Amino acid sequence: MEGDRKMRAVWLENLLLSFREDVPEPELLKDEALVKVRLAGICSTDLELVKGYYPYRGIPGHEFVGEIVKAPPAPRRVGQRVVGDINVGCGECPDCLAARHGHCKNRCVLGIKNRDGAFADYLKLPLQNLIPVPETVSDEAAVFTEPLAAALQIQQQVQIGDTDNVLVVGAGRLGQLIARNLAAVAGQLTVVARHHSQQALLTAQDIDWIQEGGIRDRSFDIVIEATGSPAGFAMAHQAVRPQGTIVLKSTYTDTEGTKWPLQLSSLVVDEITLVGSRCGPIAAALDQLEKQHVDPTGLISQRYFLNDARAAFEHAGTPGALKILFQMAP
Amino acid sequence: MEGDRKMRAVWLENLLLSFREDVPEPELLKDEALVKVRLAGICSTDLELVKGYYPYRGIPGHEFVGEIVKAPPAPRRVGQRVVGDINVGCGECPDCLAARHGHCKNRCVLGIKNRDGAFADYLKLPLQNLIPVPETVSDEAAVFTEPLAAALQIQQQVQIGDTDNVLVVGAGRLGQLIARNLAAVAGQLTVVARHHSQQALLTAQDIDWIQEGGIRDRSFDIVIEATGSPAGFAMAHQAVRPQGTIVLKSTYTDTEGTKWPLQLSSLVVDEITLVGSRCGPIAAALDQLEKQHVDPTGLISQRYFLNDARAAFEHAGTPGALKILFQMAP
Repeated sequence: MEGDRKMRAVWLENLLLSFREDVPEPELLKDEALVKVRLAGICSTDLELVKGYYPYRGIPGHEFVGEIVKAPPAPRRVGQRVVGDINVGCGECPDCLAARHGHCKNRCVLGIKNRDGAFADYLKLPLQNLIPVPETVSDEAAVFTEPLAAALQIQQQVQIGDTDNVLVVGAGRLGQLIARNLAAVAGQLTVVARHHSQQALLTAQDIDWIQEGGIRDRSFDIVIEATGSPAGFAMAHQAVRPQGTIVLKSTYTDTEGTKWPLQLSSLVVDEITLVGSRCGPIAAALDQLEKQHVDPTGLISQRYFLNDARAAFEHAGTPGALKILFQMAP
Repeated sequence: MEGDRKMRAVWLENLLLSFREDVPEPELLKDEALVKVRLAGICSTDLELVKGYYPYRGIPGHEFVGEIVKAPPAPRRVGQRVVGDINVGCGECPDCLAARHGHCKNRCVLGIKNRDGAFADYLKLPLQNLIPVPETVSDEAAVFTEPLAAALQIQQQVQIGDTDNVLVVGAGRLGQLIARNLAAVAGQLTVVARHHSQQALLTAQDIDWIQEGGIRDRSFDIVIEATGSPAGFAMAHQAVRPQGTIVLKSTYTDTEGTKWPLQLSSLVVDEITLVGSRCGPIAAALDQLEKQHVDPTGLISQRYFLNDARAAFEHAGTPGALKILFQMAP
């Protein structure tokens, strides 16, 4: 029986990560395909899940590139190299009907909510969520499709043009992708970078960076907050000009103890716009990779096998670490 | 000497309101004009000032219509009936140079910050802040110019069209103006109205209203929060759909004890946009009044003389009260 086949996977339960070799392979529903994972990336949301940001039990991981190995409704797609839209909506609610399946109240999200994720030999997603990767895009680039789409989402929500003075707060995994993406779009772009390695990557891309202390108050038209920390948010708030925009582009934990330095009165008095931003357009991100508008492969810090999951997560949580990948052992 | 002339005024000091007859008449700087106040309106911000929202000592009041009685740099303007842009910038900072004098860090704001206001026989403002009132606009309509401009500011910041389902939370002074203004613009408009008098005013304008309990969750494209209360904000947050917009259109007090029910994570997960909105375009508001697109005079609850200031403020703070005006005793 299919349900009896076992695979290797990283398992999260009660905030504990473990490596297992006895996880049942996903069983396919009628519209789904089975994907053999080739590479998968660790994202800050994964680190937050382990800290309890959201109650999750199962296989984490939502950034991946893989190969379709089983697709009963579309056998011709077997063999295709794919990346995925990680949100699976119910298809029937007002949000799904309004083309916002990523906001369906009953959605599953790969490796984040009610659906096992990519840190495993296999994952499953509906066929319509799986998008073919152009031949010229390497696995190492394709695995960045999901976070690059998240970066592109900023421009779906906020108009950024060549008269805008833009600040990106945070030069980690996501901040670097956002910066590479906005460099060609914004009039002026500056990134707040704390670590030497982050600064060097920006310099190599000819992107301006500053230290935390160097930001001029109330002087940026648009500020992208990409740290997810109260200190980063405070910095963004101080840096934005009156009538400017702050984009919240990270995973924020609102646990009991966290005090977010946000006063609604100051938003009104300074007429600030605050934009929450999450997942983005996968196809557009693939397009950027194919046209080589962005090359994210320099952001890879290290690769691990699944059985080294704890070390991999620890590395990903180290200050200054960039993208940590899982590659599947043969 | 001019500085020796006394006038009647409402005086706020140490959170106490008093009526005084011995307040010196404003002394004009070189670009300023003296305005004899005809009518002045009490706004929620005035009520908040008395509660200590912002430390203010002096004459409150920023909604007015009056007549220029002295204008040394432009004597021909004497006799003009005017309303005012209440923000006076320094003229030299980056915000002033970028046509954002309302956000100048060193600005004065009539009756709110470093400049005596309109609850007095006379006020002063730079000539360029004083805008002539068309003959066909009555004093009773013109006194609403400032709050109507604040309502219009919403459309300067957020595009609202005939496909948008809009909710206004709060049917007080400002909520009613916002609703009258958006009725012709939004695809669908609903106002949350608590008091019978507020509901009746909306019905008379053919505007849909609902009780607080009747709001369908996550169903409005754009929600205007016009209560300034944590409960109102919570309602707005619940009502807005994913990827929708909440406009903060009130005076918010962030005193120690106030808990704003805002989680940054929920803004990100639902991709909500939060827009702080304050003062608006005075000339555009006058234009609306002249063209009779909006008739606010039905919102006047009662008139008081300055010496009844405490009763007037008390009335304005009564649940369901709409616009309370001061008229000057002869």
